[in-house]
This record gives sequence, C-alpha cells and structure tokens, in this order.
Amino acid sequence: MAKDRKQPRPKAETPKGFRDYFGAEVTERQEMLARIAEVYRRHGFDPLETSAVETVEALGKYLPDVDRPNAGVFAWAEEEGEGGSWLALRYDMTAPLARVAAQYRNDLPNPYRRFTMGPVWRNEKPGPGRFRQFYQCDADTVGAASVAADAEICGMLADALEAVGIDRGDYIVRVNNRKVLNGVMEVAGLAGDDKEHARGIVLRAIDKLDRLGEDGVRALLGKGRKDESGDFTEGAGLSDAQADVVMGFMAARRDSGAATVARLRELVAGSSVGTEGVQELETIASLLAAAGYGPDRIVIDPSVVRGLGYYTGPVYEAELTFEILGDDGRPRQFGSVAGGGRYDDLVKRFTGQEVPATGVSIGVDRLLAALRAKGRMGGDAQGPVVVTVMDRDRMADYQRMAADLRAAGLRAEVYLGNPKNFGNQLKYADKRASPVAVIQGSDEAARGVVQLKDLILGAKLAQEATLEEWKSQPAQVEVPLADLVAEVRKLLDRHR
Amino acid sequence: MAKDRKQPRPKAETPKGFRDYFGAEVTERQEMLARIAEVYRRHGFDPLETSAVETVEALGKYLPDVDRPNAGVFAWAEEEGEGGSWLALRYDMTAPLARVAAQYRNDLPNPYRRFTMGPVWRNEKPGPGRFRQFYQCDADTVGAASVAADAEICGMLADALEAVGIDRGDYIVRVNNRKVLNGVMEVAGLAGDDKEHARGIVLRAIDKLDRLGEDGVRALLGKGRKDESGDFTEGAGLSDAQADVVMGFMAARRDSGAATVARLRELVAGSSVGTEGVQELETIASLLAAAGYGPDRIVIDPSVVRGLGYYTGPVYEAELTFEILGDDGRPRQFGSVAGGGRYDDLVKRFTGQEVPATGVSIGVDRLLAALRAKGRMGGDAQGPVVVTVMDRDRMADYQRMAADLRAAGLRAEVYLGNPKNFGNQLKYADKRASPVAVIQGSDEAARGVVQLKDLILGAKLAQEATLEEWKSQPAQVEVPLADLVAEVRKLLDRHR
Repeated sequence: MAKDRKQPRPKAETPKGFRDYFGAEVTERQEMLARIAEVYRRHGFDPLETSAVETVEALGKYLPDVDRPNAGVFAWAEEEGEGGSWLALRYDMTAPLARVAAQYRNDLPNPYRRFTMGPVWRNEKPGPGRFRQFYQCDADTVGAASVAADAEICGMLADALEAVGIDRGDYIVRVNNRKVLNGVMEVAGLAGDDKEHARGIVLRAIDKLDRLGEDGVRALLGKGRKDESGDFTEGAGLSDAQADVVMGFMAARRDSGAATVARLRELVAGSSVGTEGVQELETIASLLAAAGYGPDRIVIDPSVVRGLGYYTGPVYEAELTFEILGDDGRPRQFGSVAGGGRYDDLVKRFTGQEVPATGVSIGVDRLLAALRAKGRMGGDAQGPVVVTVMDRDRMADYQRMAADLRAAGLRAEVYLGNPKNFGNQLKYADKRASPVAVIQGSDEAARGVVQLKDLILGAKLAQEATLEEWKSQPAQVEVPLADLVAEVRKLLDRHR
Repeated sequence: MAKDRKQPRPKAETPKGFRDYFGAEVTERQEMLARIAEVYRRHGFDPLETSAVETVEALGKYLPDVDRPNAGVFAWAEEEGEGGSWLALRYDMTAPLARVAAQYRNDLPNPYRRFTMGPVWRNEKPGPGRFRQFYQCDADTVGAASVAADAEICGMLADALEAVGIDRGDYIVRVNNRKVLNGVMEVAGLAGDDKEHARGIVLRAIDKLDRLGEDGVRALLGKGRKDESGDFTEGAGLSDAQADVVMGFMAARRDSGAATVARLRELVAGSSVGTEGVQELETIASLLAAAGYGPDRIVIDPSVVRGLGYYTGPVYEAELTFEILGDDGRPRQFGSVAGGGRYDDLVKRFTGQEVPATGVSIGVDRLLAALRAKGRMGGDAQGPVVVTVMDRDRMADYQRMAADLRAAGLRAEVYLGNPKNFGNQLKYADKRASPVAVIQGSDEAARGVVQLKDLILGAKLAQEATLEEWKSQPAQVEVPLADLVAEVRKLLDRHR
C-alpha cells in the first residue's frame, strides 16, 4: 500500500456547536413535524420553504429577540466583483417570512397563512444542549388585523399538540395581550417616554414571577433586589400603590375566562389601550369557546408576557403540565414548548406599509424531548431483519430471502461485510438493533430450511437464563424456507 | 401615520441564485422523498442528517466532480479568537458522509448503510434553472467491499423509482464497471502514466457518444474533431486498430446480460483488471436476477461512464425512457435522474485507512419534474374550503363551520381579511385555489341554511356558459347548516 503523503490529515469532527442526527433521531422528528403539518394544512395554512441563505440587508442586523441583542448570524461577503453585498444564514423563520410577504405581496393571497419547518442558524457561543443549528416550526398569518387570526392559531396549536401525542390535560395554551399590559402601565402611572426605563424593569420583573416569587417581583418593582450571591438588581422605583396595580394584574387570573376578563377590565379602567386589549381577549375567548376549545385547553392568563419588545397585541404560550424528573432528581413541570403573538411592523421594513401579522413557533427539540419523556416515541428504533451469510457463494439466495421479506413490507438486509467470522455478523446484527437474524448454512439449504434467531429474546436470556435454559436455545427455531416470511412475522409480532 | 425614517429600505429579494418554494412545491417534494425513504428503510438503510455546516478542513478544498474543479463553497472564518478555522456549507452529501464514517467509526455498524435527504449549497454563478441551493437524496453503503452492495443499490434504485410513480418500462437502470473500462484501455495500449492525457480524451469521447454519434467519437479517438462552429477539439491520437477496440467496447451491449458479459470478456482478454471488472459485472447480474430484477429494469450497459475521475468500480445510472417535449417542441427522452458507483478512498483522507463505499444520488428536482410531466403530481394543489364572512359579528359561527369541516378531515379556513367587500373574499378564495366557498348571511342564518358555491364549476361556467345558464347559478346550492360537512364533501367528490 502506498504511503500516505505527509500532509496532516483533516480532523473528522462535527464543527463546534453543531451536531449530527442518526436513525430514529431523524425519523421521529420527521414524524412529529408531519403530524403538525397535517393539522396546519387542515387549517388552510400553506407550506413555505425559503432559501436558507438571505441577504444580510434583508435579514437586518439584529435578532428581534431583545434578550439576545448581541447574538450574531453566520455571514460572508459575496465574491468580489458582485457588488460587495453580504449573505447570511437565516437565524429564524420570521425574517424570511417578512421578506417573502413583501416580495410576493401581489401574488400571495391576502391574508396569507403559511407554515414552515426547517433549520435555522445562530452564530453564538455553543453551550451544553445549546446548538448553533436547530429546527424551528412556525405558523403565521400575515395581513389579518382581526384577533380571529390569533384565536385560530391558539386553537390550531392545541390541536397540533394533541396530534403529536400530548393528551388533553397534559398541556395548556395560555393567552394574554400586550395592550392590557400597556394599560396596566398607564394605570400605574408609567405611561410616557420618560418612563420607558422603568417600564422595562417592570416587564422583566413580571417575566420572572415563576422564578423569584411574589416577594422577589415586589422588590424589583420597588427599590430593587439583592440576590443570594449578593448582586443587586436595580428596581423600578414604584410606590406601593403602583406596585399593587402591577401585582394585581399578575394575580388577575380567575377560574373562568369571563371572570378573568372582568377582573382585567376593572384593573385597566380608564386606559383606552388597556380596555381595547381586554376587549380583544374577550373576543378571543368567545371565538375559542365557539370553536370548542374549552378552558381545559386554552385559558386567558395575565401572567404570560413573552418577548417583550417584539409583540404588539395578543401573546400566547403552550405549556406542558405533566411532571418530569429534573436534573436534580426532583419532579418539575415540563414547561413551555411553543409561543408566539401578534407583531405588526415586520413587513414595514421593506415596503413602508404596516402589515398586521401573528404567529407561533414550536420548540421542535423541546417538544420531541417531551414526547420521548412520555414514551410516545421510539417505536421506530427496531432495526431490520439481518440475513446472515454462511456461504459466500450463495449470496444470491440470501438476497432473495431479503427481497421476499421486503416484498412483505418488512425491513430486511443481507450482511455485506466480510462473512468469514460469524460472530462478527451477530455483533453487527446487535449494533443494528435487529430483532431477528436469518441463518442458512449448506446443511440447512440442502434440507430447505432456515434458522431464525430471535435476538430480542436472546438478549433477554443472555441476562437472565440459567446455563441449561441457554443451552436449549429457545431463542432459535428452524423453519421451512417456504415459511420464512410468515415465521419472521410471527417473531416480530411477539415483541410488539 | 409617522413618516418612515430616511434610511433606505432593504430590498425584498431572494438572493441571486436562490429560490423559495411555495405550497405544493414543498409538499410534492416531501411526498416523493418520503416514498423513497420508505424503500431505503425497508432495505435496511438508516437515515442520517448531518449539520449543514462543516469545517473547510473536513470538506476538502474542491468538489470531487472533476467536471467542475473551480466550483466553490460558501465559506466564512470563525470569529476571531476561535483559532482562525473556517466553516462552510456542505456542497454535497458524500463529503459529510466521509466525515461521519471516520468520526463515528467505532460506533456505527460496519458495513454502514445510510440515506440522507436535504439541501446542499454551491457557490457558483447562477444560471437559468441552475440554483445555488438544491436538494440531494443519497444512499450509500460504507465498508462493504462486495459488489453485492452495488447490486443492492441498483435494485433499490429501481424499487424507489417505481415507488414514486415511475412505471416499469418507463425507466432503466444501466450498470457498468470502471475496471472494464480500464481493461479496455490496457488492451488498446493506453496503460501507463504517460498515456494519462490520451486516456482522459478517450473517456470524455465515450461520454459524448449520445451527443456526437459514432463518427464524432471516432474523430475524437483519432486526430481530433472540428465542430460546426469551426472549433477544433484535440484527439487522442489512436490508430484505427486502437480505436476499433474502444468502439467495440461501446457497442458491446447485447440482448441479455449474459451475452453482454461474454462479449466484454472477449474484449478485455489479457487484461487482469478488465477480467476482474467483467467478473464483477457478472456477479452483479446474477445477484439482480436472483432478486427478481429482470433486464426490463436493470441492464449491463458498457456505454455508461459517469464522473470519471471519481469512481473505482461499478457505476450505475437510472434513465427515464419515456418522451417529453423538449424546449424545441420535439419529443426527446427524459434522460438520467440518478447515478452513482463505487468509490474507495473518501474516508482515507481522515483515517489513512481505505474504506470501500458505494452509493447513489437521485436528482431530486429532475425526478420531480419527471413525475409532473407524467401527471403523477399535483393532486395536492387544491386549496382549502373558504368560509366567507358576511357578518363580522358572527365570526364565531364561521369559525365553528370551519372547525366542523376540519374535524371531518377536510381543509377549511375562515376568511380573515377585511370582510367589507365580498368580491375580495371570492377573489381570495380564487387565489387559494379553493374548491368551495361557504356563504351565510343573516337571512341564511335565520333560516338555518348555508350557500355553497362550487368554485371549480363556477370557473368552468364563467368560461363556457351562456348568460342564461350563468344566471341560473347552477354552481351555487343552498343546504341546511346541519348538512354542511356532507354537502361540501359531495361537491369535493364531484371534482376528484
């Protein structure tokens, strides 16, 4: 064999922050997304697949999410001589939607309902469980000012969760309205440009209710808060009366949507934007009730805030309410898997015209993790039947067996490595998670039979069986070649 | 309304050479790929989805296809302080497979059968119908030296074509072997390093048989050829006797695989590599025959060459044999939609060890175009039922109608634009390719009925009907609200 050139070999490594998906990881995600797509399509949403690459100009320089203002994109200059423009990988699905809505505005139906599923890229420092490429699954309605569009998406989200296997009772879609929040600010005396800083502190404080509890939030609304490490977070400087208004808002949820709405109406009395927001929530609630979405699925919940700088009207969030074991071994609620809301000025960047839009994004990896935690995934993990090769010259016979199994709809393959060492073939079948190995030596061939090795039972016996049990080889049966398909199917059914 | 800032607006444009896919363009491709995936899975191939981004080091600097040595990749430097490495978008699926096979070699089954489907990116000058992002659909077996692996992929390719809707008789998979070609070169006296230039000319000449015909190829094998424009292409300088050997090779195809193999064996007599290649073709032919793939599906065909610098053994190609109308209005064969072969040194770049591999790539866009030409796609183009809004206050009623239709498995949506102008609602339904519009004004609501407008029949009548026919409104029926779902289904069935 010729010596390798001295040039150093490249490293075989996925780039930092990226990952590869194998086998069931791919099919399970696809299955989940296909079920969601079916629900979206039934609601009149059309698929859209934009190019992964956008001009930096069209993307805009920053991620819209104010929590990560410095997060970057993967960008590069077009080759010289092409005018010096820059291209970049999309960082979300909303910016490309805005571009599409502007670019094709004369051809698209108006309103335009679309869904999209695919990878997005973020040029961020990778961390544990935090990748620079991940899937997003978005549904948006562009061009509908009516909150009926928001209600529709909330209902569709509930349907999608049930379609992928989250039972009713294991999730809740919570709806709020940024306008109500703005109304509360007004009532608390926080209107006006000079109060923007204080409003920001209040919004962030509300968002932390889950984590800090009422006392923590109250501290942030007032003079500020020192955390356990001794770090001090500045407060909004609200008086007790002002803080009461805000705290009252967060506690406004009642047993029924109607009661919550009534309570909110009291809280924002005097604020026109707040009253408008409450009116919108009331409309959403009545539309959802009429369409059959009860409070066991969708509720009005004033504590939902979400991406504060971004949304202009209704906001919504889907939370999974069942418990899983946290990293500390304690049970905790699974938490949020999807969220969205109304945003009205994205297309305006391109056309100068304000176009109303509302949409939801499902956290694909989180939802998949939830389905795995619930045991709703993994049926696909079983490997193919492996036809082993005892006699290299009879490869055609083995191929025919595999072809017969496939023709019956079963997954089947012939071992294609070096057949000399039979142990390697069984090791291979093991690595393939194969349920059954088919074995036919010249002796069996002469007698017109095959041996079927039940690898699942075999693995179990290897752990549990006594030597006598094991020697009797209950996991291996001899069957007529003519019955190959039927007998394999019998073994597979045994492990279903 | 506030004036826009003076900052110029970004252009809403897909970057040059990229495109967006809408509605049926997305679903039809997905459907086709899902059917192919099902065939691949049944053959024991596992899905793999690598990251879109690779290190430039892992990709290597050049595309492997010698026809495009200067074609580039989209690449960018990692942020400063990260060691100055470069990242790039993958340009095909084979380079990432090589990286994966090296990186996970201790964990993957050996042989490793995998398939993958997804976009790849090429930094090339875009042209008509030539995009810088496009789909590839690959299946490869890594680690199997046996030509049984090649035979398996040829058979699987035939199955996949039938699974997506190409009838038997409308395609042919053609198989050849680079070793036979090398043997022919040897027999023609073109062995040795000093003859590499001449061999290259011969190979390119063979590849042009379809286009130039026998005389043209003979000219290229000999002194060279002047084309219609007067341009001269250098010839290989072969004697007539040498050229006879090469021409004989190209004409070696006989009616049966066995006869073709026998003829090839004569032609390469005396060349050990040629004889080995013929032996491999014979094995492939017998394996395929045993697995039930007759010469109506897969044939040995010496005229197949493919990606010359790249392959080391069997090569294969799937061609669609039905005719379509060319751009010039004349019928022509649809042509090649998939191809591949054996390549043995890709993983070696990383590990120093030679790993045998063979695989096929389906031209996703070409196959889709073929299916559309055959009328096998487009069933999905029908839009949703559109429930129109006559009375803004009864939005909940309309939503309930849509929900009822959806619950019955039909696509349905409520019009969410401004309902004031009813004509706009019907224009919208038209743009949505909606088959049926549901209409209920207050009068109909009071009587418990809805109007169903058959938009497909309506469009037909608009073209054909007399004024009297049109006035009688045969395309519109009034039905009880309680029968909404059944009556809509009746209308949809009418147009199936």
